[in-house]
Amino acid sequence: MDPAAATGSPTRASPGSTLAIRRIGIDTYRENVAYLHRDCPLYRAEGFQALSKISVHANGRRILATLNVVDDPSIVGCEELGLSEDAFVQLGVEDGHTASVWHAEQPASIAALNRKIAGERLGQDDYTAIIADIATHQYTKIELTAFVVSTHRNELDREEVYFLTRAMVQSGRRLDWHAGLVVDKHCIGGIPGNRTSMLVVPIVTEHGLLCPKTSSRAITSPAGTADTMEVLARVELGLEQLRDIVRSQRGCVAWGGTADLSPADDVLIAVERPLGIDSPGQMVASILSKKLAAGSSHLLLDIPIGPSAKVRNMAQAQRLRRLFEYVAARIGLQLEVVITDGRQPIGQGIGPVLEARDVMRVLHNDPLAPADLREKALRLAGRMIEWSPGVRGGQGLEIAREILSSGRALTRMNAIIAAQGATDFDYRQPALGTHAFDVRATTAGVVTGINNLRLARIAGLAGAPKVKTAGVDLVCRLGQAVAPGDVLYRVYAAYPADAAFAHQASDAASGYTIGAPADVPRVLTEF
Amino acid sequence: MDPAAATGSPTRASPGSTLAIRRIGIDTYRENVAYLHRDCPLYRAEGFQALSKISVHANGRRILATLNVVDDPSIVGCEELGLSEDAFVQLGVEDGHTASVWHAEQPASIAALNRKIAGERLGQDDYTAIIADIATHQYTKIELTAFVVSTHRNELDREEVYFLTRAMVQSGRRLDWHAGLVVDKHCIGGIPGNRTSMLVVPIVTEHGLLCPKTSSRAITSPAGTADTMEVLARVELGLEQLRDIVRSQRGCVAWGGTADLSPADDVLIAVERPLGIDSPGQMVASILSKKLAAGSSHLLLDIPIGPSAKVRNMAQAQRLRRLFEYVAARIGLQLEVVITDGRQPIGQGIGPVLEARDVMRVLHNDPLAPADLREKALRLAGRMIEWSPGVRGGQGLEIAREILSSGRALTRMNAIIAAQGATDFDYRQPALGTHAFDVRATTAGVVTGINNLRLARIAGLAGAPKVKTAGVDLVCRLGQAVAPGDVLYRVYAAYPADAAFAHQASDAASGYTIGAPADVPRVLTEF
Repeated sequence: MDPAAATGSPTRASPGSTLAIRRIGIDTYRENVAYLHRDCPLYRAEGFQALSKISVHANGRRILATLNVVDDPSIVGCEELGLSEDAFVQLGVEDGHTASVWHAEQPASIAALNRKIAGERLGQDDYTAIIADIATHQYTKIELTAFVVSTHRNELDREEVYFLTRAMVQSGRRLDWHAGLVVDKHCIGGIPGNRTSMLVVPIVTEHGLLCPKTSSRAITSPAGTADTMEVLARVELGLEQLRDIVRSQRGCVAWGGTADLSPADDVLIAVERPLGIDSPGQMVASILSKKLAAGSSHLLLDIPIGPSAKVRNMAQAQRLRRLFEYVAARIGLQLEVVITDGRQPIGQGIGPVLEARDVMRVLHNDPLAPADLREKALRLAGRMIEWSPGVRGGQGLEIAREILSSGRALTRMNAIIAAQGATDFDYRQPALGTHAFDVRATTAGVVTGINNLRLARIAGLAGAPKVKTAGVDLVCRLGQAVAPGDVLYRVYAAYPADAAFAHQASDAASGYTIGAPADVPRVLTEF
Repeated sequence: MDPAAATGSPTRASPGSTLAIRRIGIDTYRENVAYLHRDCPLYRAEGFQALSKISVHANGRRILATLNVVDDPSIVGCEELGLSEDAFVQLGVEDGHTASVWHAEQPASIAALNRKIAGERLGQDDYTAIIADIATHQYTKIELTAFVVSTHRNELDREEVYFLTRAMVQSGRRLDWHAGLVVDKHCIGGIPGNRTSMLVVPIVTEHGLLCPKTSSRAITSPAGTADTMEVLARVELGLEQLRDIVRSQRGCVAWGGTADLSPADDVLIAVERPLGIDSPGQMVASILSKKLAAGSSHLLLDIPIGPSAKVRNMAQAQRLRRLFEYVAARIGLQLEVVITDGRQPIGQGIGPVLEARDVMRVLHNDPLAPADLREKALRLAGRMIEWSPGVRGGQGLEIAREILSSGRALTRMNAIIAAQGATDFDYRQPALGTHAFDVRATTAGVVTGINNLRLARIAGLAGAPKVKTAGVDLVCRLGQAVAPGDVLYRVYAAYPADAAFAHQASDAASGYTIGAPADVPRVLTEF
């Protein structure tokens, strides 16, 4: 028996355990991978296993990485520790720097995760521990997935959702705008197009409200606000730059990721996206934690309903509204909820460039501007303007309309774009994918249904949002009369394979149903 | 618009899409990884994304792989397709062979998976599709985890468990031994030590029964039967070799993985192991599908109960028994269930070498042989022997005892070992990890509890089962009187870091409780 070994702390260095770091030019995309040669003495002596999680220490910093074992000394030698691009950047030391390597201890919160998998209810401390470990990249993809799936659907009660929300706020930075009234809006999504934020921000900031909008990229949809704004301006802004812009313009439309707001959310998305799931509890926690961390005091929440919206009917919308209201009240956020028409996409385009074109048409008061997008944005902005102390209930809509039609909203938006860093985009001649095709009606009648999910899927197969010039441009809307051969919509793709996938999908099911005028579904809203 | 692109099937080759395969010496452990250079024309033209799943075709074969993007041309050049060791072996063509690469379409069964995640009940077709996709490596780790977690615990009704079992049988090969009576036994686990199979097989085959035992490696325990048998003999046998051995010896103790029996199970274990979860439905499906695929007609199932066993009490054991009986009856397997004492480990050693030593001591009728292991194995073998047409109820145990004590069981085991390929193992002087330490009693009293989970964890931290010479050797058993300073057990590790981890864990909680004789828990059994 070697008493030193038996009593030594496992986090204390043993002699000869340092290796020279080598940057390996492999991009493993948000997953840290470390490479050790099979004959590396450390690999043998410590009994590491392939795919085990190891802890890499250098220069006072520490990262976790998944181990890949290498047999080729030209990739990594016996005295070297290879790090993938992500791991190398996270550790932040130069090539050749020495590092020590340890067995990674299991994150302390895994016990709580296992209780959740087994169906137990968790408390605030459990969620705080889990979210802190997730935010600091301690979880493997497998553990992240287990968390997402085991907290999916009805697995969380509303107090647990509050615990999760608080934990997500605590895990990151929290902005303070030193203002009593900081407004924001959010749509729970599922409706393609629907780029109202990019209209609401210039209108309400022009009225004098503070609206520092941080948006996410698309999770499963063909474009998020950040993806679309990126067509017009830089959206990945440093925190100082964001503060300067908001100081001068009272608002912005930026990607929230770089501000380190609710960082666990960005990690979880890496699993939620490929699975395409998004449960009520996770949705509420994700949205409210981001808003609170961004420093908002007032939030207008838009829940669209329709046969193919994320929320199908009024009963479901009311349940979700109550969950949002419960958590918002406990966490100290003023919340107003509107329930809107989600029977079809809002606006004409689906995909970053097409949606940016629609937004600019509205701001320019262009005759081609989609009326539904314009009207919805005005009503949302109007509601937010009514939070101003001097505005009476019912006056907001007219104030918003005046700001838009006078051109003041456009001027404000251009100032915000310039402050963020304008791109070279002409909304009159947007660059679109060159592999395009039309989808046409095969029978006569009126459009009785436009499936949001199907059109989002076709736009996604065409390449959106990764390919900004890809997407779907709608020609016919709900209730419109069509004859066989009429174009329903046009698909744009930048690559042949994408076009082929999208074409195959639109051939299988176009997403449009044609029928009698009486078959157009009706929907109740609360606006 | 390019009409060819829009109408072309996405699975048809476009010109110039072939690359030269390059074997990359990186062992990614059961995950296929493909490497493309960032400037590879195909990577750019097809709009592949990092970590997207791609389909690689060569020589009429097809594999799926996760894409890593490479920036270093010395690892993979622009006209090359790098494949990790696993991917290279699965594709089975030589270095330099041309391959074409496609976007992998999402497996068709993902829609069913999403319904399960959302809490729906699935039918036979759903399970058949999911398991077929899993068995052919179509699922990513994220999708596998989602399946395991969403079918965990009470999420499956018993007909769904039957559907899942059938799907798992159908997904692989099914052996046919051309015999009416093919017997097997299985313990649902959770009890360290407990290597009865390696005793039962030589006894019942010596009696004349056919018992072709295929075992698994440990999932979350410090040793599975395959891990322990591997100390004595080769266990990774080809199917033809397996048949030859069973023809000559009437039995074997082999690893089931190579026989391609219920292959989906082996894929799922790669996710279940790091999560450490194992639900009733998955357990029943996994066990019964493997037995049916292995050609068994009769199965003796052992459910140990105890405060730290997988099954805690008789009520839980009876529920599990009924689930096993329901599925076994529907799938056509004769099943007998015994409920045994699982209050403490069975045998003295925990870990592959230590358990192999115990087994050989029993077979040699060595005075040091653990009596509990010997008696349990005899009773199990006795029950199985009673399936023989000529044996009356109650006679089996005596027959088994005679086979063991006469040395016939040892002779049979040695023949099986020789047939499988013997290793150089001397049970009188087993090689054990050199970093050893003792854990001692700190108070006087009798042993009132031995926590199976804790001892399994300590043996696991010491290195078992990956390190065969690591583990825990018990000195004191339940009910035994101890004085302060008495050795409770000894821990063996092969590496300093492992010893340190195990020591830290045994310091924190030894797994033993000392108290009054009346505090020793009692347990009811059905044997």
